[in-house]
Amino acid sequence: MTRWALAIHGGAGARPRRVPAAETRAIGEALKSALDAGIRVLSAGGRALDAVQSAVRVMEGSGVLNAGRGAVLNRDGIAELDAALMDGRGRRAGAVAAVRHIAHPIDLARAVLDDGQHVLLAGEGARQFAVERGFTLEPDEYFVTPRRLAELERVRAARHPAGTVGAVALDAHADLAAATSTGGLTAKHAGRVGDSPIIGAGTFAENGVCAVSGTGAGEYFMRFTAASEVAARVKLQAMRLEDAAGEVIGMMKAAGGEGGLIAVDAGGNIAMPFSSEAMLRACASAGREAQIILESKD
Amino acid sequence: MTRWALAIHGGAGARPRRVPAAETRAIGEALKSALDAGIRVLSAGGRALDAVQSAVRVMEGSGVLNAGRGAVLNRDGIAELDAALMDGRGRRAGAVAAVRHIAHPIDLARAVLDDGQHVLLAGEGARQFAVERGFTLEPDEYFVTPRRLAELERVRAARHPAGTVGAVALDAHADLAAATSTGGLTAKHAGRVGDSPIIGAGTFAENGVCAVSGTGAGEYFMRFTAASEVAARVKLQAMRLEDAAGEVIGMMKAAGGEGGLIAVDAGGNIAMPFSSEAMLRACASAGREAQIILESKD
Repeated sequence: MTRWALAIHGGAGARPRRVPAAETRAIGEALKSALDAGIRVLSAGGRALDAVQSAVRVMEGSGVLNAGRGAVLNRDGIAELDAALMDGRGRRAGAVAAVRHIAHPIDLARAVLDDGQHVLLAGEGARQFAVERGFTLEPDEYFVTPRRLAELERVRAARHPAGTVGAVALDAHADLAAATSTGGLTAKHAGRVGDSPIIGAGTFAENGVCAVSGTGAGEYFMRFTAASEVAARVKLQAMRLEDAAGEVIGMMKAAGGEGGLIAVDAGGNIAMPFSSEAMLRACASAGREAQIILESKD
Repeated sequence: MTRWALAIHGGAGARPRRVPAAETRAIGEALKSALDAGIRVLSAGGRALDAVQSAVRVMEGSGVLNAGRGAVLNRDGIAELDAALMDGRGRRAGAVAAVRHIAHPIDLARAVLDDGQHVLLAGEGARQFAVERGFTLEPDEYFVTPRRLAELERVRAARHPAGTVGAVALDAHADLAAATSTGGLTAKHAGRVGDSPIIGAGTFAENGVCAVSGTGAGEYFMRFTAASEVAARVKLQAMRLEDAAGEVIGMMKAAGGEGGLIAVDAGGNIAMPFSSEAMLRACASAGREAQIILESKD
């Protein structure tokens, strides 16, 4: 049997309270559609890079997660988006940061990767690149959902981390890939770049080692180079993926930074640790039943 | 005797050819002034973070290195600057990317660090933050030197990596710090962010481990999370700093990415490996004579 494995997340954060049943259902459906999109690629023998991009793309379009349409708004009420993906084969990567008007930032990150000249494009320059590549620009209003507007009003006083979406995959060719996409923090400063588009912080993949996508208090993931630290433990210390991922999440938690990550290693093992109250997550592998987990830890 | 150590770089790249003697003299003087600025802080018992900021600040103002005034120009003829610094005490970090109009990006990165809310601000949002913090905005022309204009014309055809400036220090309190500042690549795409402002790629510091500042083919430093990889070898494998730094530079070289880095560890050991033809560099430690090295390898 061909071996492949896939994990996705829809963000870590506080345990949701008083969420309308319709919204919970919509989130569950978004995760299921995203997982299915990735499974379709992988079970047909497709590439891990395409699988993680497909899965993230579905979540960006769902309108109920913090990425693409429905992303959280910055302090000026505008969605500024970060996204990255990395191909563990050859360590190629593409990322965009603080970009507006792009419905699917993960597709733009893929265009940066395929272009091959740079790894990360930010802000106005990223928008220019999108136009050069024929991307359609959406008005700022496209991204704004009533929920995020209300959240911005609430959060302008007390700031707390919001979720993010991501995917990691191992494919039948033994290639690993990771992808992450987010609106970042509600009420963030304009131009704030979080960990998601930073290779080695929120997104990382290296063949033979592991692929990682993070979610949570982004500044901690950056300061702790979280994804790199997981990979270094697997690569340099032959630590089990679950132990490596747990240790890094624990280090950040001890320093005051909550969050979670999903990771898959070269053997197809999946780890999905988190220190926050909850993390939306799902996984599937060849020959094993898909799991979609919307509940919190306890 | 109090122990401290300091290393700075003025960029790695091709061996300079037919450089006017006056320019070589100016570069040497810039490195000497930068080294002296750092030494003044450290020998008075000051903090590593202040020392690396001071050293980089001098190089940014020199007009003869690829940072601040005199930085290389993007494909639109504009200086877009990246800078970061990291305090190994508490792993605090501040960075700015693709920022215009700021004479000393390293000071803006420091303001981001001191503010403490975010780690990285990019583009227009970074400019807004600068205004909020009372920074003076310089016109685009401030940054443009005749040399960089000519270089842009030449390089628009054949793109190659240009230098960067950086500093790493260990202070008498056993704190480590790193700082890096750059204009990036000549003729880069607008919005391109390189490794310099990326914690774990071009800049990293962790107390008890090491501080690293990189220069060279930035996209490789990002894809290889170069600074993190050096630190991981020192921390997780107890590898000697020189071996760790050399191994990571070698990995990137094997993949096609040239460059160099400066690093200092908790014991005050300094490593300054590079795979490019040349790297401008200098170092000093308590009780040892300062060295300023403008020549290439051979």
